[in-house]
Amino acid sequence: MTLADDELRRIDAYWRAANYLSVGQIYLRANPLLREPLTRDHIKPRLLGHWGTSPGLNLCYVHLNRVIKERDLNMMYVMGPGHGGPAAVANAWLEGTYSEVYPPVSRDAAGMARLFRQFSFPGGVPSHVAPETPGSIHEGGELGYSLAHAYGAAFDNPDLIVACIVGDGEAETGPLAASWHSTKFLDPVADGAVLPILHLNGYKIANPTVLARIPESELVSLLEGYGHRPIIVSGDEPADVHRRLADALDDALTDIARIQAAARGGESTERPRWPMIVLRTPKGWTGPREVDGVPVEGTWRSHQVPLGRVREDPEHLAALEAWLRSYRPEELFDEDGRPVPELRALPPEGNRRMSANPHANGGLLLRDLTLRDFREYAVPVDKPGTTFSEATRVLGGFLRDVIADNPDDFRIMGPDETASNRLSAVFDETDRVWEAERLPTDEHLGPHGRVMEVLSEHLCQGWLEGYLLTGRHGLFNSYEAFIHIVDSMFNQHAKWLYVTRRLPWRRPIASLNYLLSSHVWRQDHNGFTHQDPGFLDVVVNKKSEIVRVYLPPDANTLLSVADHCLHSRDYVNVVVAGKQPALTYLPMEEAVLHCARGIGIWDWAGTDTGGDPDVVLACAGDIPTLETLAAADLLRQYFPELRVRVVNVVDLMRLQPDTEHPHGLSDAEYDALFTTDKPVIFAFHGYPYLIHRLAYRRHGHDHLHVRGYKEEGTTTTPFDMVMMNDLDRFHLVMDVIDRLPQLGGRAAYVRQQMVDRRLQARAYTREHGEDHPDVANWVWPHGGGLS
Amino acid sequence: MTLADDELRRIDAYWRAANYLSVGQIYLRANPLLREPLTRDHIKPRLLGHWGTSPGLNLCYVHLNRVIKERDLNMMYVMGPGHGGPAAVANAWLEGTYSEVYPPVSRDAAGMARLFRQFSFPGGVPSHVAPETPGSIHEGGELGYSLAHAYGAAFDNPDLIVACIVGDGEAETGPLAASWHSTKFLDPVADGAVLPILHLNGYKIANPTVLARIPESELVSLLEGYGHRPIIVSGDEPADVHRRLADALDDALTDIARIQAAARGGESTERPRWPMIVLRTPKGWTGPREVDGVPVEGTWRSHQVPLGRVREDPEHLAALEAWLRSYRPEELFDEDGRPVPELRALPPEGNRRMSANPHANGGLLLRDLTLRDFREYAVPVDKPGTTFSEATRVLGGFLRDVIADNPDDFRIMGPDETASNRLSAVFDETDRVWEAERLPTDEHLGPHGRVMEVLSEHLCQGWLEGYLLTGRHGLFNSYEAFIHIVDSMFNQHAKWLYVTRRLPWRRPIASLNYLLSSHVWRQDHNGFTHQDPGFLDVVVNKKSEIVRVYLPPDANTLLSVADHCLHSRDYVNVVVAGKQPALTYLPMEEAVLHCARGIGIWDWAGTDTGGDPDVVLACAGDIPTLETLAAADLLRQYFPELRVRVVNVVDLMRLQPDTEHPHGLSDAEYDALFTTDKPVIFAFHGYPYLIHRLAYRRHGHDHLHVRGYKEEGTTTTPFDMVMMNDLDRFHLVMDVIDRLPQLGGRAAYVRQQMVDRRLQARAYTREHGEDHPDVANWVWPHGGGLS
Repeated sequence: MTLADDELRRIDAYWRAANYLSVGQIYLRANPLLREPLTRDHIKPRLLGHWGTSPGLNLCYVHLNRVIKERDLNMMYVMGPGHGGPAAVANAWLEGTYSEVYPPVSRDAAGMARLFRQFSFPGGVPSHVAPETPGSIHEGGELGYSLAHAYGAAFDNPDLIVACIVGDGEAETGPLAASWHSTKFLDPVADGAVLPILHLNGYKIANPTVLARIPESELVSLLEGYGHRPIIVSGDEPADVHRRLADALDDALTDIARIQAAARGGESTERPRWPMIVLRTPKGWTGPREVDGVPVEGTWRSHQVPLGRVREDPEHLAALEAWLRSYRPEELFDEDGRPVPELRALPPEGNRRMSANPHANGGLLLRDLTLRDFREYAVPVDKPGTTFSEATRVLGGFLRDVIADNPDDFRIMGPDETASNRLSAVFDETDRVWEAERLPTDEHLGPHGRVMEVLSEHLCQGWLEGYLLTGRHGLFNSYEAFIHIVDSMFNQHAKWLYVTRRLPWRRPIASLNYLLSSHVWRQDHNGFTHQDPGFLDVVVNKKSEIVRVYLPPDANTLLSVADHCLHSRDYVNVVVAGKQPALTYLPMEEAVLHCARGIGIWDWAGTDTGGDPDVVLACAGDIPTLETLAAADLLRQYFPELRVRVVNVVDLMRLQPDTEHPHGLSDAEYDALFTTDKPVIFAFHGYPYLIHRLAYRRHGHDHLHVRGYKEEGTTTTPFDMVMMNDLDRFHLVMDVIDRLPQLGGRAAYVRQQMVDRRLQARAYTREHGEDHPDVANWVWPHGGGLS
Repeated sequence: MTLADDELRRIDAYWRAANYLSVGQIYLRANPLLREPLTRDHIKPRLLGHWGTSPGLNLCYVHLNRVIKERDLNMMYVMGPGHGGPAAVANAWLEGTYSEVYPPVSRDAAGMARLFRQFSFPGGVPSHVAPETPGSIHEGGELGYSLAHAYGAAFDNPDLIVACIVGDGEAETGPLAASWHSTKFLDPVADGAVLPILHLNGYKIANPTVLARIPESELVSLLEGYGHRPIIVSGDEPADVHRRLADALDDALTDIARIQAAARGGESTERPRWPMIVLRTPKGWTGPREVDGVPVEGTWRSHQVPLGRVREDPEHLAALEAWLRSYRPEELFDEDGRPVPELRALPPEGNRRMSANPHANGGLLLRDLTLRDFREYAVPVDKPGTTFSEATRVLGGFLRDVIADNPDDFRIMGPDETASNRLSAVFDETDRVWEAERLPTDEHLGPHGRVMEVLSEHLCQGWLEGYLLTGRHGLFNSYEAFIHIVDSMFNQHAKWLYVTRRLPWRRPIASLNYLLSSHVWRQDHNGFTHQDPGFLDVVVNKKSEIVRVYLPPDANTLLSVADHCLHSRDYVNVVVAGKQPALTYLPMEEAVLHCARGIGIWDWAGTDTGGDPDVVLACAGDIPTLETLAAADLLRQYFPELRVRVVNVVDLMRLQPDTEHPHGLSDAEYDALFTTDKPVIFAFHGYPYLIHRLAYRRHGHDHLHVRGYKEEGTTTTPFDMVMMNDLDRFHLVMDVIDRLPQLGGRAAYVRQQMVDRRLQARAYTREHGEDHPDVANWVWPHGGGLS
């Protein structure tokens, strides 16, 4: 038996203190130490918060404190059931961190009063384990991502152990169910360890949980099937559970130490069977057993506020007082409301406190990436629009060297698409992480890789978030359509970043970088399900200070954008770029300038030299840029007198007013590019409405006509895809004609030509199964270049 | 041993035929029967399609055909690896369904030529198992949903067996990982069976798969942990695998029959351990073993097109010919290119063919719901805006009776939020489905329920999709913020519906109905993570003929909208409604009229009786409507002479031009409501840009000013939430003042009043922790009513 009686007593007292503080936060606005009889006036008017999970979170916390001290562990705490915010705050306060971060919430009676009052109170702190909570990298408001975050934190942190409480509700989600297989991606040599603690308190909001209602043998099979050795702790008698949990933790941590020693000493190259803990204790444990004649402790009824009518019902009030006093606060807090010396001495000190672990405020540990000059990877461009390159393949060379120069704090995640997205150069330098069985025929698989591929966008995103939040760098490359799978995770991360930027003690972290290749216009082979550029619409709903969207039209601009993103902090950068051979337009120095401006007139492509244009052709995205240039070419042929201006947009946020987004153009700048009164035909990579939405306040908006993806597609050729959506060069010319009545009689003839050429292109495609060479091999025929 | 030699030979021949047809689709544009030596000209110019998974899909298909015939089974086939489109098409053609649905693709040489040519060809059919494919309810373009779809199909279809091929790539996704637990939600009495076939071909696009690279004992543990009895079939020698697979299927189907008989005969009430099959065969089996000196069969290199340069490289061409001839087409197809009689006789007939099973074209089986008159559930409204009701609770009464009247084809799905969303009346009539262990303290849990709750939005959505696609009805209720979790699934379903509407043989199915309650404005207690109305933005990107968005402002309008949605077909209906006590505005008959119009002037709320207004206050959503009316009240007090018009929007699509959406108002209608030149202050439920995006082409757009959620929030009070986002009544009055210079000097005074009242409201909230009663208890003080 691990736990001496005296230690048990102290642990139990600490647990009672944390529970007391949790209940206090939910209910009390005054009388925090119950120095006077509890009255209605001491109770908050709105009772908000979640009790049910809190005693379990508190129990694990104090027991982890014991092993941290005993073994001098570097440990983080990820709370899956993030609605148990009171528990996280209670523990941070008990070990002093809370008062260090928020001095007004001192570790005494006055601070305790403030602690209670502020919780879920207007102007106070949120009810969940939010960014405001010291020691947290995981809010847990939306359930399912705790374990992926924990693994992300553990990667490349060989000394770190991440204890991760997985709620049995959360365990029903898809992302969490997939996360268990992270065991096949954790290297016992170079990574830290994750200790999952599956907390079976049995209930969700109103239902039992699946994992709590299957036979234990089935549960054990399941967890063993995930690659774990489950250690089960079950009970509802505190002293008994304390002893068992202490034993289980000692067992688990000894095993982790053994596994790591064996792997690091070279004695074992087998994938380890990592220990984990299953903790089966009652929901709302130590809370009211019954309320109004129905059972509450150990049922779903304890999920939120077990006693709901404390201000209205004297019996509820009395029950609350009895509940609070059952923790014997007078034994736990001294005259000044400070935890008694014995409790103050219990937790670890300094950065060993889980609430103060610097990994949980990753910006503290963040180092700049070592980045070579991206210009070295440039493709030569002598004449714009005449040579081809695969933009992502070029980027792959740059990323290869980022990996070489940053061997322990940069990772690339992707759902099995790194090669398909043509970033294969990275495999010259590294492997894909793979701890499962390997065969001689495998290529680029190994335990130490910098590339992580699993067919789960949720895992890629969750791992990367955990990695970034603990102070490292990375990139998520994905098919554009399927990044929607993590819309909701993106939302939550953007919200997290927005809040952290308002907390001075939270240090900036590396941006979350998305590279969306295999995009809508080049999914002609996979068909309609693979064609969806709508992630951009989700992204721009988030706070403008957080989100950035880049559409580099070619290889050199992609390099410049990627370099910028890898330097940036606290953003979400979305980069859409092609992987197919595509025209290059700008020599490197021009590309750098163009990307720095984010938007610009391409003089060489236009015919409005110096003067006012008759029409503006704007474009954003590689394919829209191609079609726009081809349209400009056609217009030169048919209407040599027409003054056409070509504007290319790399940084989509430039279109917003500067009052709305920090990258936004002023109205004067916008007008100088787009005019206030000339037709603008805008060829856009995504859904056309997005451009209207960004530009609706601009002067020339009534003259803005946007073409983009209008949700038409199937398996066909690339050019047929743009034709199906009226984004093709011929249709762009028709759009110009339709908006320029001054073109006169010749216009009708040209328009019919365009109609005919569309029909011919389609007919050719349907006969030959590929695009007409004139279309497929088109290059810019006019020369031009540096402006 | 099950399989006689002769049967084995016929099964193998049929498999060879399906494989031949699969390869032919990928490569051949002519010479389908190889009656002449293969030349470059017979090859398609672009080689698109996925070979790797196809032989496995074909193998399972022919073996299932055997058991269907032998046991006269009603069976559907769900292909998780939907990129194996060639296999699905090949089998539909072999058993004649393809030619029945598409007569030009006849079951002879001419039809075979067309079959090959059309595949992944412009104007032809998609490369995946798309809506165009007979027998499919599951495209599988985006991976992860096959098993959930299969279960959805099986619910309430006691005679149906759904064979579901789960790819080992797909098995890595979160949604699929969660779907295994569907075993706890399938009733052996009233539901059909699902037979998962986990196909371990070992590789994804460029990587091995996790489940193929863990020890078999671990895999068995995992599957047993999911509640299954796995039957393993492994091999790479066809005859051997045929025998083993036949045995395994006999074992599984006998077991399913035994389980169902025991449950239906009342002999067993235990949750069954359902059989499943693990099939471990090489990826790209029977394809080229090596290409260009590297192994292809049995590796990731066979994922798509194993021989890539057939038109350029004579060796590749020769290898393709050898590959095709290895199936001995001359034995499989007769002189006319028809399958030989032996093969034609092999599959089941009529609707027993999986490609012709009517469940896979659910509209064929769809019955109208029996719906009582929703007016019977109306709440009385004598005076608008003076009484309170909880809209979703009222709806709950209606849904309770929908359940009572439609006991076997209507289900409600939700992630543990049906009670939280206050639809609890349904539990007067039914239970939550629960096949796992039950305890005496449980409430409303049972094997036969109409409500399905699991903490996985993916499962809720996947089950419901499967249920609807097989001809039934349902509703998904969820917290608004977390419906983003299934953005991508919604996208895919909307795409599916759009395509099916163009296929005359696909019959209309019931709409997918979302009820989003616990919405952004009433997540003040859960905080920022729970506040996100952006699903609407995702929805409106899809085709206008598919999507509908409703924002009923009160209980009676919610009833009317719900009734409309439950009658509709082939749509995705999104309904956002509140669950908290909220003002009621319209008596039932007015509510019906208002909803039928979708938008309307509320004369009783305005002061522009009959004439032109000075300003239009528009609103959509329950909280924006409340704040707008309160603002209208303030304007009456401060500017009694001002002519204010109040417009309420229920059907958001009315704002789009009629050229863009079938529900769209004509410009004349729009102008009659909103004017062309008066300021419109629009209080909107969601992100304000959405309104601009819908209305940017309208005449008065430059005068349109929208307030909505601007991504500000935390745990606070309801009124503080609207204040944080400038949607509150006081700010709306300020917005009016700022746009009406004619209001003169008094306006500055009133504006300051509004600023002060905001500050007072905030100060009160921060002191008392709840909203000021004047705000919280505000009712419409002016009377009014029927227009």
